[in-house]
Amino acid sequence: MTSSELDLVRRIRARSRLASARGLVVGIGDDCAVFRPRPGEDLLFTTDLLIEDVHFRRDTHSAAEIGHKALARGLSDIAAMAGDPRFCLLSLALPAWADDAWVQDFFTGLFRLARRWNTPLAGGDLSRARQLTCDIVVCGASPRGQALRRDAARIGDLIYVSGRLGHLWQEHRTPQPRIDVGRKLRGRATAAIDLSDGLSLDLRRLCVASKVSAELESIPVMQGATLEQALHGGEDYELLFTMPPGAKPPRGSFRIGKIVRGRAGAVRLNGERVPAKGYDHFRSDRPETRHSP
Amino acid sequence: MTSSELDLVRRIRARSRLASARGLVVGIGDDCAVFRPRPGEDLLFTTDLLIEDVHFRRDTHSAAEIGHKALARGLSDIAAMAGDPRFCLLSLALPAWADDAWVQDFFTGLFRLARRWNTPLAGGDLSRARQLTCDIVVCGASPRGQALRRDAARIGDLIYVSGRLGHLWQEHRTPQPRIDVGRKLRGRATAAIDLSDGLSLDLRRLCVASKVSAELESIPVMQGATLEQALHGGEDYELLFTMPPGAKPPRGSFRIGKIVRGRAGAVRLNGERVPAKGYDHFRSDRPETRHSP
Repeated sequence: MTSSELDLVRRIRARSRLASARGLVVGIGDDCAVFRPRPGEDLLFTTDLLIEDVHFRRDTHSAAEIGHKALARGLSDIAAMAGDPRFCLLSLALPAWADDAWVQDFFTGLFRLARRWNTPLAGGDLSRARQLTCDIVVCGASPRGQALRRDAARIGDLIYVSGRLGHLWQEHRTPQPRIDVGRKLRGRATAAIDLSDGLSLDLRRLCVASKVSAELESIPVMQGATLEQALHGGEDYELLFTMPPGAKPPRGSFRIGKIVRGRAGAVRLNGERVPAKGYDHFRSDRPETRHSP
Repeated sequence: MTSSELDLVRRIRARSRLASARGLVVGIGDDCAVFRPRPGEDLLFTTDLLIEDVHFRRDTHSAAEIGHKALARGLSDIAAMAGDPRFCLLSLALPAWADDAWVQDFFTGLFRLARRWNTPLAGGDLSRARQLTCDIVVCGASPRGQALRRDAARIGDLIYVSGRLGHLWQEHRTPQPRIDVGRKLRGRATAAIDLSDGLSLDLRRLCVASKVSAELESIPVMQGATLEQALHGGEDYELLFTMPPGAKPPRGSFRIGKIVRGRAGAVRLNGERVPAKGYDHFRSDRPETRHSP
């Protein structure tokens, strides 16, 4: 790549302009982005790393898919807290193999998803690195006090997922984050989390935070995936949430079990203990990359 | 490292609690951090990468110095927009060599600086990588409309720096970001930028954004550094700012020149053109790492 940093920033900036940048006073090009919050809103912040040979492999993912995925991970966290996306920031470290064409395609994938969810790119940082590394920051907003946490599931609540699980084993390279589902959960769900690391691990996290156990009854599995894959595979971008027994879940959701009294974080499926085998970067038995299939 | 991600998050979380977390409703441990803005404030956001063998070398920097530096880079951007820090987020990718002791020392350096500037760690992400990679996000705040931009320097303004330049050639491993200087510039300076990539490059950026030229007269050089190093060395964490002729600069500042009419971005020192030789990750003639000295 021969462009200077200033040229690259200039080109990204030219492509970052979205129709509506609610509240964004200063975007790309200064020391900081400047955002003017609306009264009565809480702001939500999430950061997500996406690293070559850890979260993706460049021989199996196109540049546009990687750009999509970088932003989708952050948007999914905003969805899980019942937020509306407001803007994003991107730190991007490029290895020598990432030429101009690759970088432009990466931004095509990222900006397509950004437009879909009205999430302008407001700033970030650029660097070199040996592995391609993205860190996406997404800011979302929710009415004051209505962000949906993972630590408030109650005994007796029913457990739902927003769709079938096992995406990783599908030709489904650009899943949409469940922003619409998240919004519908405001004031109705008791707790939520997104399924980035696999149902078994993410449900365990929700139960640990809420100090409860879960009893699963049935898991909706995508065609082509196994129950094992649906239980432990990651990157489903579906939401896992709990609601009191009388509450109506959003259309397309599946009831998968209920919250019960018991050891914090314990999960059972039809009476059998489910180990938390989802993806953990720091477990010694982790696979080389998450994308083993 | 043998800890699971959950253990590591738990330990970081236990150490992240600061006395005062103004506005932070949810910190580490959920899908997002939740922040409640105060009325009448604009929020400032910056992200900064810090990558092994690009921004630092582990044989010449201690873990605590690297933790300090990761956060100092972000705080310096907040200072440059005249902001008060509110909270930070950290994405951290660890190679195999970074053992528990190294990681704990890294956080010692980061949290020491975070306490100094009341900037609680509100969340982030963890991963593996071959090079140690940090991406720090800092959120700051400033009274509505008072964030100090780099694009508003005017012809006739005087140019200042907040201290002597050439830190990189000093045994000065944990410089403090100039938050206090930034605050004092509110409503008084016309434009500001922090000197992260060297005076020649950063002054050029300010002049390009403001569509003006600069005429430098004298540069305050640190003892042990040369004029060349003060002009083109990076990581000074000093602020570069412009003020109208009558305005009084903060104590300790040096007047270095004035803003003049001319080609946008052109910089001269005593009549001679100054090339923008500061650090650019994407220039073909860049050194292997910034830390060549």
